[in-house]
Amino acid sequence: MSKDHNFFKPVSSVVQPRFAGVPTFMRLPILEQAEWSEADIGLIGVPWDGGTTNRAGARHGPRQMRDMSTLMRNIHPTTRINPYECAKCAEFGDTPVNPLDLMDTLERVGKFYEDVHAAGVVPLTAGGDHLITLPIMRAIAKDRPVGMVHIDAHSDTNDRYFGDSIYTHGTPFRRAIEEGLLDPKRTVQIGIRGGLYTKTDNNWAKEQGIRVIEIEEYFDLGVDKVIDEVAAVIGDGPTYISFDVDGLDPVYAPGTGTPEIGGLNPYEAQKILRSLRGRNLVGGDVVEVAPPFDSEGMTALVGVTMMWEILCLLAEPFEET
Amino acid sequence: MSKDHNFFKPVSSVVQPRFAGVPTFMRLPILEQAEWSEADIGLIGVPWDGGTTNRAGARHGPRQMRDMSTLMRNIHPTTRINPYECAKCAEFGDTPVNPLDLMDTLERVGKFYEDVHAAGVVPLTAGGDHLITLPIMRAIAKDRPVGMVHIDAHSDTNDRYFGDSIYTHGTPFRRAIEEGLLDPKRTVQIGIRGGLYTKTDNNWAKEQGIRVIEIEEYFDLGVDKVIDEVAAVIGDGPTYISFDVDGLDPVYAPGTGTPEIGGLNPYEAQKILRSLRGRNLVGGDVVEVAPPFDSEGMTALVGVTMMWEILCLLAEPFEET
Amino acid sequence: MSKDHNFFKPVSSVVQPRFAGVPTFMRLPILEQAEWSEADIGLIGVPWDGGTTNRAGARHGPRQMRDMSTLMRNIHPTTRINPYECAKCAEFGDTPVNPLDLMDTLERVGKFYEDVHAAGVVPLTAGGDHLITLPIMRAIAKDRPVGMVHIDAHSDTNDRYFGDSIYTHGTPFRRAIEEGLLDPKRTVQIGIRGGLYTKTDNNWAKEQGIRVIEIEEYFDLGVDKVIDEVAAVIGDGPTYISFDVDGLDPVYAPGTGTPEIGGLNPYEAQKILRSLRGRNLVGGDVVEVAPPFDSEGMTALVGVTMMWEILCLLAEPFEET
Amino acid sequence: MSKDHNFFKPVSSVVQPRFAGVPTFMRLPILEQAEWSEADIGLIGVPWDGGTTNRAGARHGPRQMRDMSTLMRNIHPTTRINPYECAKCAEFGDTPVNPLDLMDTLERVGKFYEDVHAAGVVPLTAGGDHLITLPIMRAIAKDRPVGMVHIDAHSDTNDRYFGDSIYTHGTPFRRAIEEGLLDPKRTVQIGIRGGLYTKTDNNWAKEQGIRVIEIEEYFDLGVDKVIDEVAAVIGDGPTYISFDVDGLDPVYAPGTGTPEIGGLNPYEAQKILRSLRGRNLVGGDVVEVAPPFDSEGMTALVGVTMMWEILCLLAEPFEET
Amino acid sequence: MSKDHNFFKPVSSVVQPRFAGVPTFMRLPILEQAEWSEADIGLIGVPWDGGTTNRAGARHGPRQMRDMSTLMRNIHPTTRINPYECAKCAEFGDTPVNPLDLMDTLERVGKFYEDVHAAGVVPLTAGGDHLITLPIMRAIAKDRPVGMVHIDAHSDTNDRYFGDSIYTHGTPFRRAIEEGLLDPKRTVQIGIRGGLYTKTDNNWAKEQGIRVIEIEEYFDLGVDKVIDEVAAVIGDGPTYISFDVDGLDPVYAPGTGTPEIGGLNPYEAQKILRSLRGRNLVGGDVVEVAPPFDSEGMTALVGVTMMWEILCLLAEPFEET
Amino acid sequence: MSKDHNFFKPVSSVVQPRFAGVPTFMRLPILEQAEWSEADIGLIGVPWDGGTTNRAGARHGPRQMRDMSTLMRNIHPTTRINPYECAKCAEFGDTPVNPLDLMDTLERVGKFYEDVHAAGVVPLTAGGDHLITLPIMRAIAKDRPVGMVHIDAHSDTNDRYFGDSIYTHGTPFRRAIEEGLLDPKRTVQIGIRGGLYTKTDNNWAKEQGIRVIEIEEYFDLGVDKVIDEVAAVIGDGPTYISFDVDGLDPVYAPGTGTPEIGGLNPYEAQKILRSLRGRNLVGGDVVEVAPPFDSEGMTALVGVTMMWEILCLLAEPFEET
Repeated sequence: MSKDHNFFKPVSSVVQPRFAGVPTFMRLPILEQAEWSEADIGLIGVPWDGGTTNRAGARHGPRQMRDMSTLMRNIHPTTRINPYECAKCAEFGDTPVNPLDLMDTLERVGKFYEDVHAAGVVPLTAGGDHLITLPIMRAIAKDRPVGMVHIDAHSDTNDRYFGDSIYTHGTPFRRAIEEGLLDPKRTVQIGIRGGLYTKTDNNWAKEQGIRVIEIEEYFDLGVDKVIDEVAAVIGDGPTYISFDVDGLDPVYAPGTGTPEIGGLNPYEAQKILRSLRGRNLVGGDVVEVAPPFDSEGMTALVGVTMMWEILCLLAEPFEET
Repeated sequence: MSKDHNFFKPVSSVVQPRFAGVPTFMRLPILEQAEWSEADIGLIGVPWDGGTTNRAGARHGPRQMRDMSTLMRNIHPTTRINPYECAKCAEFGDTPVNPLDLMDTLERVGKFYEDVHAAGVVPLTAGGDHLITLPIMRAIAKDRPVGMVHIDAHSDTNDRYFGDSIYTHGTPFRRAIEEGLLDPKRTVQIGIRGGLYTKTDNNWAKEQGIRVIEIEEYFDLGVDKVIDEVAAVIGDGPTYISFDVDGLDPVYAPGTGTPEIGGLNPYEAQKILRSLRGRNLVGGDVVEVAPPFDSEGMTALVGVTMMWEILCLLAEPFEET
Repeated sequence: MSKDHNFFKPVSSVVQPRFAGVPTFMRLPILEQAEWSEADIGLIGVPWDGGTTNRAGARHGPRQMRDMSTLMRNIHPTTRINPYECAKCAEFGDTPVNPLDLMDTLERVGKFYEDVHAAGVVPLTAGGDHLITLPIMRAIAKDRPVGMVHIDAHSDTNDRYFGDSIYTHGTPFRRAIEEGLLDPKRTVQIGIRGGLYTKTDNNWAKEQGIRVIEIEEYFDLGVDKVIDEVAAVIGDGPTYISFDVDGLDPVYAPGTGTPEIGGLNPYEAQKILRSLRGRNLVGGDVVEVAPPFDSEGMTALVGVTMMWEILCLLAEPFEET
Repeated sequence: MSKDHNFFKPVSSVVQPRFAGVPTFMRLPILEQAEWSEADIGLIGVPWDGGTTNRAGARHGPRQMRDMSTLMRNIHPTTRINPYECAKCAEFGDTPVNPLDLMDTLERVGKFYEDVHAAGVVPLTAGGDHLITLPIMRAIAKDRPVGMVHIDAHSDTNDRYFGDSIYTHGTPFRRAIEEGLLDPKRTVQIGIRGGLYTKTDNNWAKEQGIRVIEIEEYFDLGVDKVIDEVAAVIGDGPTYISFDVDGLDPVYAPGTGTPEIGGLNPYEAQKILRSLRGRNLVGGDVVEVAPPFDSEGMTALVGVTMMWEILCLLAEPFEET
Repeated sequence: MSKDHNFFKPVSSVVQPRFAGVPTFMRLPILEQAEWSEADIGLIGVPWDGGTTNRAGARHGPRQMRDMSTLMRNIHPTTRINPYECAKCAEFGDTPVNPLDLMDTLERVGKFYEDVHAAGVVPLTAGGDHLITLPIMRAIAKDRPVGMVHIDAHSDTNDRYFGDSIYTHGTPFRRAIEEGLLDPKRTVQIGIRGGLYTKTDNNWAKEQGIRVIEIEEYFDLGVDKVIDEVAAVIGDGPTYISFDVDGLDPVYAPGTGTPEIGGLNPYEAQKILRSLRGRNLVGGDVVEVAPPFDSEGMTALVGVTMMWEILCLLAEPFEET
Repeated sequence: MSKDHNFFKPVSSVVQPRFAGVPTFMRLPILEQAEWSEADIGLIGVPWDGGTTNRAGARHGPRQMRDMSTLMRNIHPTTRINPYECAKCAEFGDTPVNPLDLMDTLERVGKFYEDVHAAGVVPLTAGGDHLITLPIMRAIAKDRPVGMVHIDAHSDTNDRYFGDSIYTHGTPFRRAIEEGLLDPKRTVQIGIRGGLYTKTDNNWAKEQGIRVIEIEEYFDLGVDKVIDEVAAVIGDGPTYISFDVDGLDPVYAPGTGTPEIGGLNPYEAQKILRSLRGRNLVGGDVVEVAPPFDSEGMTALVGVTMMWEILCLLAEPFEET
């Protein structure tokens, strides 16, 4: 027997104060796997940082983001849309992971998202390091490549890294393009910056056709023109949103593994996300929140607010159903 | 249809790593109120600090204790008992509270515990400030007074406080005795210390017959003799355990509102709790964990470990059922 | 016998280093109530957070702001005015509060400000949560309504909240308008943002005539045009300044109870305050500094710097006297 | 006109909550220098760390100790004495210091204590690094040497240090003995430990007749026998108490410049202090609290609790007067 | 040309203050691999936590331990031995590791220690998680099994874990026994405690003949009798020291991945280490220091002090050479 | 025998992960003084804060900046220049300092830089408080005055301070101008702001001809016009870069002694530095990083990134050699 739409609502903060209760994403109900198909959007954690080559900690990201998510409210301030009235949203818990084995984790996470996808659910994910986007794409883009709006300090299109590993949090989009999951010509990367390993870093990405908006160009253009660029690049095709919190200036997101100074501010990031309203969005993630490097939890707050903005985008198209 | 005993088991850490998943107490399943009567022991949070006269913050205690509780394992190291095999244990969530109104909160919390009690469930609580023990006792001791093993830096038997309030976190046991809920002659307080407000502080408690073991006597006796005292005081009658983390030396529990230097260490506190095995225990709580004053969460860890020790005590008698 | 103007001067930092000494606001002398009428401006703390529905802690705000205030110097950088030469300024200490009782606190705080007002002193306040502005207004606006420049992430004009309470830190300006203390048509709110509870949030405020500059409009206008708006709204009538630190982006003010990402930066906030020079100002406050959520104290620093900017505004008109 | 004894009382915590108000030591009134002679005991801060050869920060000690001192209450738990009924106690503020010049600071601090001593006031000091005890002794021991109970990880009797400086926080007691201020035969040092610079470290101290109880002997003897030793060493002569918080295990006092693992616990330190009741005590200090290395302030709490224990000792003899 | 013994000395703290300079272990000189054979003892970091099943972070351990090691001095307080006069000690840097690949790391670390062993150097290691002891033993115990003094909260003799991995930080000593590297009958484990996964946890260890001193027995015996036990178990055979900081109570070592309350205190741990003087020691390590969970660095301080105690033990036998 | 250019290269992060290894600046090799003349650029720490009149801590700056410097990569993102291919760069360690004596330290630091200068090496320095720039200039500007690009919240051209000291971190550039080391007419100060001590503060600087761009003018002009001003002021003469991290808004650099709200953001600071490409640069420093006030280390990260930007500027001219 299917659940009422009212089931898929956050606990009200006038019934239970925000600081109270078992913290699920946005205070949503937990849905067991058998019931997934009843939901429209599943909020999922991937508690894993095994692809991290520098400072680990993103394995703790989903939990702290759940904790901070209870500060979120229900109505979007500019659109006055209530995502929970539009779509049936639920907490799906964390995917399985193997903290000792990268390849096994890729498989476990991939299987989880295949099941989510098979249940007809749009996934919205809290990472975890950025490598997790690869198994997500393997599930949701298996039938056709997707475009991507990618906010990040790093292009994450390296070929290989430490000890010649091809799977790290610096390589997911190289792999996704190679595997035909990501359409580089419908991909835009925003906020890329910081010192490089080699003089040809990021060239491959540009050669594939990715629109790489490095931070210098970002500030020169201004956010409104960047938004125009984004619209032009992604068009109307199916598009994924991947938000690495290190795309923001580290002052807003100190709790991350590879901070690079001189990044976006959250208001402009919100503007970019809000500009995606009405696009053909197939899922999204917020990654690289590493709580051990931010004991106050502000990185998780900014991360989960972005997740909530994406939720509003993903939910609105369900309104008619 | 009643649930299988296996339902009432923590998520295994070899299925999901300890840092993963929605944090419930001890990773136990959440039980809706309609199903409470299926459980033997309910783990409950009271996210409230409105009775606090100094540094507030205990409203955030239950959530951080849930987070840290995922470090707990299943088998007790000395008894080799698995509490989850003995009793059906479940997460009951947080009680309702009203952050703006003390009297309303006492009522809401009291009603919750009445329902728990009516469902035949033994409550194990994470506070919240110490005033919360009063509404708990009103529920579970309404038929006859209980004895108490009380670890704390403060006797909490003041008469009134700020602005002549009779309900604060310094008065619950005065009220409980007056209301006939607590039997002072079967009550032992351990670790009482620190500067006093008046020269007669704690005298009332002693006059009622409470066995007050101030910290000086505690260290003079040694923990083994203290344990003998505890046994003699509580006897075989129904007994409640109330563990204020400020009973510990603040170095072990900096995240609390009213720290007093020179307290118990956790190992000895564990010994005292373990000595209660086989007693007639009717519930317990761990209170005054105030996360804003301990960003690393070690207070919550020590608090929730004590909660787990109490859980083992409460669960064992259910083994035969 | 009245005190010399020199009495009302901060301790010099070449006599006593900034890190030294008992911390009063701006290192000013403490004035006992009997002498209040000798001062022009009183700096006052309201150590209270009982109106807070989420994360408490603002009760500790005044003390940490006093601590950080010793970093302030005497001369304003753009006007080169020394407020302490213009006006007799003094530390008035903290108001009485009752940490256990909201209504009693409103009364105690209100009485204090009535006395301040009766002594002919302009109050400059460090909160405390935002509900404290209500009893302040009851004192200083009892004879005629005041206008307000209000920097905040939230309109604080809700009707009621948790358990149908009409007094919370989300309702003070609804009450002030209802009580005829605040003139909505001479009120401007700057920086309002974040998710909403209902689709009609903030509508009441606009209906009363408050000029609500939501953050999106704020950034679209730019700070210079916002300043023009402010001037137009407040005109020459008596005006109060209320500065909630959560109006700033939380990166500048993490130590607050209800952070909302994407806010003002301190430089622009300073510009707005400085634009009020020459207006008819009757008092001001800086509220919602919650030290337990910012152990480094930077929120208190930014808060007390704003308080110092307001002090310069309040002091200048006294120059001729 | 002299002040009433009631003037010299802390603000009551039922009038003003502990977290409120301008923080003076123990919430005592501030006394201007002209009135010093009306007090029996002066609580004084020396905000200075210019004698520190490693991690500085003790300049901020007095202020954080004042902040934490508001957690103290009035009645001693074991003696039930109220020091404020025995003696007239007051906040004297911080001494002058020169953060840029060690020799100038020694002079400024020395002059301050000469004035205190001339006013007939017993000084109780919050440091500051340990070098500050030298100018204190120059004032209070100028007429005859004093004995000392000295709790510390370090003997502080080095001859010279960095760049052949003879005044550092490692040398005060060598200088005090050389200057005839400290009687080594009536001096006991407790808790000395940690790696040494040379194989003959501390030998000079022992040769002078100081009773050095290194930590190994301390634990072998047990605190009760240590107390006997202390009594035997100091006898009935005038005795000073100097408590360096690094004498405690650093877990209790992480906020200090030169932590050494494996030290005293606060309860035993309290026992040692309490054993000094009835001795001929001429002053005391608690030094080396360095807040920048302990953002939670627990070091200041333990430090100021020791200061309060010493205050009780110093105050009791005034009872008859 | 071989280096002078004077080369192998720490930088003096009267030449360069402790807070200054590039931080090597104990401020020792760095030795390139080509010169290793000139040293007697090599201080080595293994910056790796890939075997960690819960909270990672020990990859940062060696660097923070180097930072804190500059607080160490040269002379042992009880023996008055200068280890740097006894043995030629040097900083060997960090071993290679692969943050993405457990098996590759075991190989890289193993190769490094083979080379150290081949150079005739005794290794003293800062971890890293506890799995690193396995490749160390493969190098230094390849010719004959060693005994071990093992301080830890966990036996680390599990068989397998997450996803059936046989190499985790919970399994090194099972593997070492199976591979004939560790002689269980000459192995003593001290401080074992905490909840168990299964009712038979640690039984395998005992069956092999390891002397497991669980924390309850530890406190019952007292440290002096524990020391006797240790002596009896290890005898005169070659013995390794492995010190997991989680053997200490977490209050002394919060910066670790798997804290268990109720553990050893550092002074007693020092006593146990000091009791090993004169034994046939072949190396040692201090592991599981995870700086992200202890921003103040006190865990690293206690860890590196233990490392220095072990250094004194390892160095003394070289004195005659 | 001279070293190969390859010697002067950072350790590669694909050989050793960024979190591993003994932390030298940028992971460069350490050069002993005898070999200095082989290098083109020396990276130097001055671990000293004895000129600090408020909150000390910059003595720990160089070490934390070394730690964070391992996050730097090799190639500049906009110029794609590799500074290590252009110039021979090396870690020179910390200068000698005397933590107890300001004048002695000025001499020791001065002597060190004279030697660096005599070896023909361009110095790039991590402070330390800002007074250290004076002895640096005495070495590198002894033959002719230099111009300066100076980013700071404070002009640092005060005459004297506490106790009439002429050497403090507020006076270096007054002294440098008086000593003929700094050409005020070729000096530009950017970001000056905050309350003043006197109404004539900074007037002397302007009278000497320094181009003081106070923060208000800075924001009015916009960074591009500021860059034009900078170019016009410094021309082609020899120019030094001095970057005080308090020039940035304190949200980016909380770990500093004298924070002033409302400052530069790092991206614009990077733009200003990058605009100096091709100028006649003779050295640079980044000062006032005070780690005790920023436990997360983000101030050190932003500081060392600026140091790396300056390194790229200093290195490029060596390319042809």
